[in-house]
Amino acid sequence: MSGASPAELEWIEGGITAVPGVFAAGLHCGIKAGTARDLALVYSSAPATVAGVFTTNRVQGAPVKVSRERVKGGVAQAIVASSGCSNVATGEQGLRDAREMTEIVARELRIPEARVLVASTGIIGRYLPMEKIRPALPKLVKALSPRPEGSRNAAEGIMTTDTHPKEAALRVEIGGRPITIGAIAKGTGMIHPLMATMLCFVATDLAMVRDALQAGLRRAVGGSFNRISVDGDRSTSDTVLILANGLAENRPLARGDRRLRVFQQALDALTQRLAVMQVRDGEGATLVIDVHVRGARTRREAEVAARAVANSPLFKTSMAGRDPNWGRVMSAVGASGAAVQEERVGIWYGDEQVAAGGKPRDGVRWERVKAELAKPEVTVTVDLGLGPGHDHVWTCDLTEDYVKINTGTS
Amino acid sequence: MSGASPAELEWIEGGITAVPGVFAAGLHCGIKAGTARDLALVYSSAPATVAGVFTTNRVQGAPVKVSRERVKGGVAQAIVASSGCSNVATGEQGLRDAREMTEIVARELRIPEARVLVASTGIIGRYLPMEKIRPALPKLVKALSPRPEGSRNAAEGIMTTDTHPKEAALRVEIGGRPITIGAIAKGTGMIHPLMATMLCFVATDLAMVRDALQAGLRRAVGGSFNRISVDGDRSTSDTVLILANGLAENRPLARGDRRLRVFQQALDALTQRLAVMQVRDGEGATLVIDVHVRGARTRREAEVAARAVANSPLFKTSMAGRDPNWGRVMSAVGASGAAVQEERVGIWYGDEQVAAGGKPRDGVRWERVKAELAKPEVTVTVDLGLGPGHDHVWTCDLTEDYVKINTGTS
Repeated sequence: MSGASPAELEWIEGGITAVPGVFAAGLHCGIKAGTARDLALVYSSAPATVAGVFTTNRVQGAPVKVSRERVKGGVAQAIVASSGCSNVATGEQGLRDAREMTEIVARELRIPEARVLVASTGIIGRYLPMEKIRPALPKLVKALSPRPEGSRNAAEGIMTTDTHPKEAALRVEIGGRPITIGAIAKGTGMIHPLMATMLCFVATDLAMVRDALQAGLRRAVGGSFNRISVDGDRSTSDTVLILANGLAENRPLARGDRRLRVFQQALDALTQRLAVMQVRDGEGATLVIDVHVRGARTRREAEVAARAVANSPLFKTSMAGRDPNWGRVMSAVGASGAAVQEERVGIWYGDEQVAAGGKPRDGVRWERVKAELAKPEVTVTVDLGLGPGHDHVWTCDLTEDYVKINTGTS
Repeated sequence: MSGASPAELEWIEGGITAVPGVFAAGLHCGIKAGTARDLALVYSSAPATVAGVFTTNRVQGAPVKVSRERVKGGVAQAIVASSGCSNVATGEQGLRDAREMTEIVARELRIPEARVLVASTGIIGRYLPMEKIRPALPKLVKALSPRPEGSRNAAEGIMTTDTHPKEAALRVEIGGRPITIGAIAKGTGMIHPLMATMLCFVATDLAMVRDALQAGLRRAVGGSFNRISVDGDRSTSDTVLILANGLAENRPLARGDRRLRVFQQALDALTQRLAVMQVRDGEGATLVIDVHVRGARTRREAEVAARAVANSPLFKTSMAGRDPNWGRVMSAVGASGAAVQEERVGIWYGDEQVAAGGKPRDGVRWERVKAELAKPEVTVTVDLGLGPGHDHVWTCDLTEDYVKINTGTS
């Protein structure tokens, strides 16, 4: 697909409800203290082809187990989600609770229970307060709206330590037809070892064959949520779902279809935008850092080295202090497991090279480094000088606020 | 060696200078700002059998490169060390500087240069200020003392963000002879990914054959410095050295000697004591956590799971808040890569079980959990319920002070 001209993407308002036939709602039922929304619902008026990508943690939440099974059915119409309690490490009771949430939503929406998916995020090892959730779900269905408020409320309903709701939507022409893709997402525990929950629900009016949709979603997740240091595949609850309801009445896209190229570009752009939003809103974060590694022996080694830097508390704290302490970058790549020959390593902050040949570079223009570090999004590049491998990972800085947020929140 | 009765160890004062024939010194030459000591020297009046364990980081400091070569020679008599600048990522100039330090010390001590080892700790990517170090080394040699102050000053001379010097010494009877083992150490960057430097210099008056000494040191490091979350083998400068000067005039211990059992017990105890001191003095740490994993399929999987918990910022921040948030323990083991079957997992704080069968345990006596969390050293145990594998790792909590200490220290 390289060499293809980029598709024209028009970013629009409305989040997931920008998509024809998609309704959403969010409200407070009391899982969280105070008045913050803690329930969310996304509903497609037309049955949709569904695909999902879930955590690979060996401990998985009850909602993940339920949704993973149902996604295999290939068709879905609603996603119900809760925040404040993840319903993880809750045994059989947890499974019963997750299923009951979908059962109530299905009954109220008059759709088969198997077409309702479920996700939860929050503290692990607590049972859902079903006595609060049960009576609230019919109200949640009644609150469904096709307007931007619906998307906004649903995005709020899945927030945990997020400081603001995350939504995105775009329009793109695919095979001559205007198509909309919209999404809501949450995720803020922005640090290795990746235990915060990352949720993203995407909808589109495109008609798609299931395996093409699944392949496209997996690819998009690989380049977005799996390229931030939250690392979507490791929490106990991470869930990315896409509903393609076909209301655009296009001929369904299947594997090998040339129109997939544009769809992929659009889905990649949408998920990357949301992934960077997650990093920017990382717990306590004050800046986004795009860590690039090139010159690795292989792409995989570049990824390993970039992740090592992106997950290094010492690197991340140095960035919180806007301190170009490149020795910490050097040490992180050296310990990453990727092949490294010290005397070949070069390091850049923005466009300014600070280390060359594995040692301090003469004549560094520190005012340029300082200017780069003053930006809200900083690029740090490491050239290992060994081969063609290149990859990158987005991360954020590690501040005292991260610790404050995570000290005693259960 | 299991089943053997433990040797009687008598803990004594004096650190490394408690060992007959061992002198030490430390002073300030100006690598660090202020007046804190930044040079250290350990000297054995008799040539000693030497063994060493070094970082496995692919980026290694110039002092590591020099000392690693010299340890192969099998005999050493002095260790010169500096703090404030690690002399890592400094190319050929760094090697010249490290060698010059040993050359000056050798000349002043009138011993062969090849018998002088070197270590440095501090910021990476800066050249050593040789104009300050050069004139100070003769003074350092003149300051050598066989008294406790010598050890104390040398222990101070290798400190970076350590809040106090770390020393230990013990007496033990080996083959009917009283033997002394003493050491100084430093290390405080107590968090994965393991980039802070850990140094430990050990001396004993025991006579030992080199390969037995190397094997014993490697084994001791495996059970001590490699069992704390600093994880000695990953920084660019980590160095553990032992000098056995033979002044006890025992028949030298060689591989297979039955007396090695007691020596190993003593060396294990000494290095573990220093390792726990390092954790207790971890940057910003307020408590030591001993994370045990049992019931893993293999010992290796137990280690992997224990490290995952010990390195989890979310677990460590929860401990800073004295919050028994066991869901974070559950998630960490689930993401560790070790085999985990959720419904078999049990978790304890101290002796009180909080999770059983992968879910909240009924009737938890939370006052007991609270009492455990009020201790300066807390034990957290995970039983995976799958096999005989057991291991443990010491770590510390993650506090706001950790971030303060690491934000902009270059």
